Amino acid sequence: MPGKLIDGKAIAEQINAETVAEIARLKEQHGLTPGLAVVLVGDNPASATYVSMKDKMCARLGLHSERVNLPSSTSVGELLAILNDLNFKREIHGILVQSPLPLQISAGNILVAIDPSKDVDGFHPLNVGKVALGDPTGFTPCTPAGVHELLIRSGVATDGAHVVILGRSLLVGRPLSLILSQKTPRANATVTVCHSGSRKLAEICRSADILIAAIGAPHFVKADMVREGAVVIDVGINRIEDKVVEKGYRIVGDVAFDAVAPKASLITPVPGGVGPMTIAMLMHNTLRAAKMRHGIA
Amino acid sequence: MPGKLIDGKAIAEQINAETVAEIARLKEQHGLTPGLAVVLVGDNPASATYVSMKDKMCARLGLHSERVNLPSSTSVGELLAILNDLNFKREIHGILVQSPLPLQISAGNILVAIDPSKDVDGFHPLNVGKVALGDPTGFTPCTPAGVHELLIRSGVATDGAHVVILGRSLLVGRPLSLILSQKTPRANATVTVCHSGSRKLAEICRSADILIAAIGAPHFVKADMVREGAVVIDVGINRIEDKVVEKGYRIVGDVAFDAVAPKASLITPVPGGVGPMTIAMLMHNTLRAAKMRHGIA
Repeated sequence: MPGKLIDGKAIAEQINAETVAEIARLKEQHGLTPGLAVVLVGDNPASATYVSMKDKMCARLGLHSERVNLPSSTSVGELLAILNDLNFKREIHGILVQSPLPLQISAGNILVAIDPSKDVDGFHPLNVGKVALGDPTGFTPCTPAGVHELLIRSGVATDGAHVVILGRSLLVGRPLSLILSQKTPRANATVTVCHSGSRKLAEICRSADILIAAIGAPHFVKADMVREGAVVIDVGINRIEDKVVEKGYRIVGDVAFDAVAPKASLITPVPGGVGPMTIAMLMHNTLRAAKMRHGIA
Repeated sequence: MPGKLIDGKAIAEQINAETVAEIARLKEQHGLTPGLAVVLVGDNPASATYVSMKDKMCARLGLHSERVNLPSSTSVGELLAILNDLNFKREIHGILVQSPLPLQISAGNILVAIDPSKDVDGFHPLNVGKVALGDPTGFTPCTPAGVHELLIRSGVATDGAHVVILGRSLLVGRPLSLILSQKTPRANATVTVCHSGSRKLAEICRSADILIAAIGAPHFVKADMVREGAVVIDVGINRIEDKVVEKGYRIVGDVAFDAVAPKASLITPVPGGVGPMTIAMLMHNTLRAAKMRHGIA
């Protein structure tokens, strides 16, 4: 069993170590420190936790970071003005607006207000288009980029393989399908995107060489949806009630791990699988934004 | 047999008739005539034919059209200057640069020089991204938009169905996969994108409720790749030698029509299937560009 676990934490630490080394080089050779601004609107406790994880990771890896905390009553205009300032701020190379936003602010209006060259989350339509077109100047959203790196660094060959992605969200399923179907040596897969309304869902999932669950439903993928020997990547992060633990809940993925793991050749755990990759890719994207801004190869 | 043929020519004429009516309304109520500029670089005879078909269709449907003919020695700078003029020209709502371009001009540099709001071909990364995100202000490339309309107007239900797309080009396969997997009533399909390097290609194709061939290889899809009762859409336009006809060649699709048609519930012929839809959607996109530019619903 331990031999088939993909250790996302260890792979994320490899990437973080590469980021640290590259940041040291940038400082030494170019006097440049990559900077990330994180904007938090309102006081959602989960959002606050995520944002402080990002702050801490910036500090750990040697990035400059700025936090903008705004009240939940912030207007669209106020937020746009702040983003405009950050777009022009020289110390800032990446800008991230933490989701979810309060109801009076439409995410669509905000995403397009971030300079695409600082859009390290990869949500601006221009970056989505660049990823679709295989343009290397685009930013890939951090979670799908993390899944791709997990596959590469675990030695999973995608070339010609059938990847089935459960879930078609703009954050995960859709960009991941675009990445993995590119005509490049580390992609070149046959990719199926399915969803909760797909007919013959179990049959389609069973045809996968690589099954990626990003449907946001706890333990959705059962053993009968997985082929013997498939690689299973679990992107789900779901809270389910658990009275045995002190906080009253625990985090589970979209895959019924205990039942599926015996059939899989490789599988990611939750937590400790895709999760740590997302933040590692955010740091990586910020580093890349800084290098692109200054024309450093 | 005639009952299972999808008549692309007739469906394109329905769309053209709608375009004519809407253009008449725009002229009457707003004094506005949609205008398309087509830029042709060099003297490729096939390109010249396509461009003159577009000119003629503009004239037939009541659009204003302008043709810019440039020598094959045109530099990137010269072409960019012309596009800049067209971007600002008030009579022009849509701009199209005919492919292929001479070797000294990179298509990537040209696509991003067209104002996205005049990019009726839908090739600008911003429009690609908007289509991926389901943003209705984006322009969908004409051939995939035409395939989608063919399906809708032939009464083919995509909701929950398994669509297999053979070919992942930026012109057809990729945008089509994004359109058909959207969470909207007229899409909502399970979509697989496969390609010449896909393993178990025939098996995957046989699992399709709707098989769309856009792989650019004559008669690539054989009968054993099609399930009894599947809908088959043939996007291919291939020239093959034919000494019996005067011009020495004939046009065939990516599907071995004679062998496949008996198994299909519905099938498009080549020619007369997807082909006429592409130009109808170009006219439709130009009309839509004019309306968006002037804020007309």
